[in-house]
Amino acid sequence: MFDLINICGIIIYGFGVRKYKNGGEKVAKKQKLKIIPLGGMNEIGKNLTVFEYGDEIVVLDCGMTFPDEEMLGVDLVIPDMSYLVNNRDKIKAVLLTHGHEDHIGGLPYFLRAMSNVPIFGSRMTIGLVEHKLKEHGILSIAKLNSVKAGDSIRLGNNFRAEFIRVNHSIADSFGIALYTPAGVVVHTGDFKIDTTPIDGEMIDLARFGALGDSGVLALLSDSTNVERQGYTMSERTVGQKFDEIFASHPKQRIIVATFASNVHRVQQIIDAAIKTRRKVAISGRSMQNVVEVAIEHGYMRVPQGLIINIEDVHKYKNHQLVIITTGSQGEPMSALTRMAFSDHKQVEIGNGDLVIISASPIPGNEKTVSRVINELFKKGAEVIYKALAEVHVSGHACQEELKIILGLVRPKYFIPAHGEYRHLATSAKLGIASGVKEKNTFIMGLGDVLELNRESAAITGTVTAGALLIDGYGVGDVGNVVLRDRKHLSEDGIIVVVMTLDKRGKITAGPEVVSRGFVYVKESEELMESLRQVATYAVEEAVRKNKKVAIDWIAIKNAVKGEITDFLHEATKRKPMILPIIMEEGKQK
Amino acid sequence: MFDLINICGIIIYGFGVRKYKNGGEKVAKKQKLKIIPLGGMNEIGKNLTVFEYGDEIVVLDCGMTFPDEEMLGVDLVIPDMSYLVNNRDKIKAVLLTHGHEDHIGGLPYFLRAMSNVPIFGSRMTIGLVEHKLKEHGILSIAKLNSVKAGDSIRLGNNFRAEFIRVNHSIADSFGIALYTPAGVVVHTGDFKIDTTPIDGEMIDLARFGALGDSGVLALLSDSTNVERQGYTMSERTVGQKFDEIFASHPKQRIIVATFASNVHRVQQIIDAAIKTRRKVAISGRSMQNVVEVAIEHGYMRVPQGLIINIEDVHKYKNHQLVIITTGSQGEPMSALTRMAFSDHKQVEIGNGDLVIISASPIPGNEKTVSRVINELFKKGAEVIYKALAEVHVSGHACQEELKIILGLVRPKYFIPAHGEYRHLATSAKLGIASGVKEKNTFIMGLGDVLELNRESAAITGTVTAGALLIDGYGVGDVGNVVLRDRKHLSEDGIIVVVMTLDKRGKITAGPEVVSRGFVYVKESEELMESLRQVATYAVEEAVRKNKKVAIDWIAIKNAVKGEITDFLHEATKRKPMILPIIMEEGKQK
Repeated sequence: MFDLINICGIIIYGFGVRKYKNGGEKVAKKQKLKIIPLGGMNEIGKNLTVFEYGDEIVVLDCGMTFPDEEMLGVDLVIPDMSYLVNNRDKIKAVLLTHGHEDHIGGLPYFLRAMSNVPIFGSRMTIGLVEHKLKEHGILSIAKLNSVKAGDSIRLGNNFRAEFIRVNHSIADSFGIALYTPAGVVVHTGDFKIDTTPIDGEMIDLARFGALGDSGVLALLSDSTNVERQGYTMSERTVGQKFDEIFASHPKQRIIVATFASNVHRVQQIIDAAIKTRRKVAISGRSMQNVVEVAIEHGYMRVPQGLIINIEDVHKYKNHQLVIITTGSQGEPMSALTRMAFSDHKQVEIGNGDLVIISASPIPGNEKTVSRVINELFKKGAEVIYKALAEVHVSGHACQEELKIILGLVRPKYFIPAHGEYRHLATSAKLGIASGVKEKNTFIMGLGDVLELNRESAAITGTVTAGALLIDGYGVGDVGNVVLRDRKHLSEDGIIVVVMTLDKRGKITAGPEVVSRGFVYVKESEELMESLRQVATYAVEEAVRKNKKVAIDWIAIKNAVKGEITDFLHEATKRKPMILPIIMEEGKQK
Repeated sequence: MFDLINICGIIIYGFGVRKYKNGGEKVAKKQKLKIIPLGGMNEIGKNLTVFEYGDEIVVLDCGMTFPDEEMLGVDLVIPDMSYLVNNRDKIKAVLLTHGHEDHIGGLPYFLRAMSNVPIFGSRMTIGLVEHKLKEHGILSIAKLNSVKAGDSIRLGNNFRAEFIRVNHSIADSFGIALYTPAGVVVHTGDFKIDTTPIDGEMIDLARFGALGDSGVLALLSDSTNVERQGYTMSERTVGQKFDEIFASHPKQRIIVATFASNVHRVQQIIDAAIKTRRKVAISGRSMQNVVEVAIEHGYMRVPQGLIINIEDVHKYKNHQLVIITTGSQGEPMSALTRMAFSDHKQVEIGNGDLVIISASPIPGNEKTVSRVINELFKKGAEVIYKALAEVHVSGHACQEELKIILGLVRPKYFIPAHGEYRHLATSAKLGIASGVKEKNTFIMGLGDVLELNRESAAITGTVTAGALLIDGYGVGDVGNVVLRDRKHLSEDGIIVVVMTLDKRGKITAGPEVVSRGFVYVKESEELMESLRQVATYAVEEAVRKNKKVAIDWIAIKNAVKGEITDFLHEATKRKPMILPIIMEEGKQK
């Protein structure tokens, strides 16, 4: 059994790359490394990549994502992990690059099947995982291990992982170098190059360069911002903007919404508050969680007495207050949305307020964000958001940064990661322009198996992969039939036709016709009457046709469904779901 | 009766502003002009503004919009026109600023109630309206009249309208000056300042200035791009980009998707095709319509033999072809989407293709556009879109352009138009910065009635206004109940519980439990069995309680619904719609 002390015991610092590379080469000629993305590739979110060598597997990240619009009623989406479940005995570790939901959110579901697998990540990442597992009531079963940038750990007989400092929009993020007998694979994780980071810890470019010097088999690289030229601005520029805005709004109460997980952003808001002698209140559960974890683990510097309880905001004047809140994506239940729509217990927005939305809308959230901004304007607040001022920067590298990493690592094989197909394809071009051979560049899909060593690489097959849609209490997998039905119901509603027949097929009760979500019903009792007549006719015809044999209940149902469908389409051009329920008299279930 | 000849007869060129202003002043002291937005204000789309003086009304634009995500199953949305219907005898004209759907799309519904009202617009606009009304089969009832920039027409006793050339992303767009006894009101329409327009016709800034010199009572101004600093680039820059791209891709087949209505964009694609000796094929019904209208009315210059039938593309080599297509918003049924998903009859996308998406995603369409781009990449096409190159410019004015109009017109009252609340509020600030008094700036909501003359202005009341949701064949107004039901159905599905009772309340058939769109059902026959038991128990209890009196059918239904709801929430944390249908034996409807 693994535990934290044993793990720490096997951490080897400054592990020599060259020695290992030589040592691994004999095996490499016999076997190949397999790289299998089960999430995050060729789509947005729920990142999970499998590295397999011989009978050993290492998993990199285990994320979730939020449902698309078509996934009606779905709460969240995780990768299909059946490949891992089927190979659970091979899994040596889950390595976490950072603590964003699309990299750690799948863990509760992973652990239900594979709780014995040790999990490694930075203190910040592990702190957030602890919080999450506590909520799921499964913290006790998890084997969580904190590592530091520069740490290197052996995993099984074939793997060794080294954690490399990168910059990102959450504190303490890693890239990972995975040493295998087939060669070294570098995964950037989500990253940017921030030359003036808030915590003073710039991405370890030297380490990426040293790995490149020693020879890297393959690079998997963040492709999120590959469509943007140039460089992503430093997180620090946002802090400078906060300082300007705070200084020029000395009288207003200031409310700043941002991503809870962006500890450095929150730190900069706190710093601006200190400079302008304001107290800070925190609103929103996830914001409170993260601030707690960040302070506990030393990622945030907050003077004693600065943070006040949100219950106490009424005790302070506008110019004495900053409220840091969730809701930068316009999420319906978030604190900022509740403030905007006068549904927040402690904070009522008015014309003494300045609201800063320090985030960009994630694609798909534009309308909800806009709705909140409109509502804040209507309440009389001044609102500053990305379209008006530079109050947000991305956490992902733009083209020049991606080319720097490519230039430092100089991999033999290049596998763009973390993006939709368009991003991966554009990233592949960047790799080729940076000197990777076109035939050595792989745009992978979910479940694709890339087998590679120093001699060659090829996609040799696929394993089960896809999305598991989680709805409700248990891990209910919402199937296609359920989704299709929900879509049908949502567009045209449902018409239920009910009747009871006796054993000879004579109608003894009904037909009753009831509709929900169907547009014409309210207006037309006549239409309902026609439907009853159509149903009666359909049943009588179906019974007559089958008179010689026993009553065919399925034929009757189909007849009712068919006749009603045709009639409605003719009359209204609509196709609601038709649900005939025919009961047999005297038959009680 | 109005007809085109009579209309032409009353067009007065160079109508004197000063004279009219003096003439109107006596009346102005007694009465005020009313401005009532019924659409397009404080929201996106379906523009419609009412101008009322005494017993006369002039309507400016009559648009539609596409439904929000929450408007499940709705086809399109038009303004609630009941105020106009109730005042139909007062309406003297509908003035159209330009031919975009959000300015003309409501006309078929307007005309069903008020077909006698004459409609005025540019030749391009009227051409598009003709097409639309033909599709609705009501062209014959409409009184359509073409006017030219500079034309001025008298409407009733109190109004006179002058049409002013503006630049926009559709040809032949107008701003409108409305002369009333209360003063002159200027509406910019949708506009930008394009100093190098494709048709050579720059916005008539001199006319806006002359109106300003004579004194303008109120200005209504486009606010769409008010959040953007500086100027919107000229349409011509896109043409230069096309020339570059066409020149650097001499071997590929080129497919360009853009808004069908952007005639100048299409002209520039055609020009680039001519320069590189390519033939042009058109795909998509609306693109074919618009090109037809544009050529017919002389808005497009197309050499004989350049355009080939889309059926004939197979006869040409890649380098000989440009295909202009709809689908720049990723619309599911559009030509480009069908090409991307291998569902287009004539065009199969492959790695010999360059696809240019010459548009920005309208907010809300980001994901559908992205899906199409991904699919095109997967097919091996090279894809150029806004994120990668400047292949699109907006049709709306940025801050500097808005300030130029404000500076020229110098209105007494300023009413930001065409935007969500955030845009109107930001636009109002721009107006104040440009010299309008804050108290003279009005952010209006739908149905607000602004009464104004030279002495004063105030919002004095509201009239019925809002959105009419159109679903299906007729003008079915989808009410809130239907939408709420659809949302409920889409999230958790429906469970129908059916049974037949005899007159004493004994169950004689059922209970039958059927579900659709409910997640747990497939997995659990036990759950269904439990639900039948719960329903049986609920009925028996309800009957027992009411034994003394007659059977209370509503109480039984409510009992079943309540018990099943509670049981399910306890067991699954889900709340599907519960639809109990209890029939009485022997009772046939």
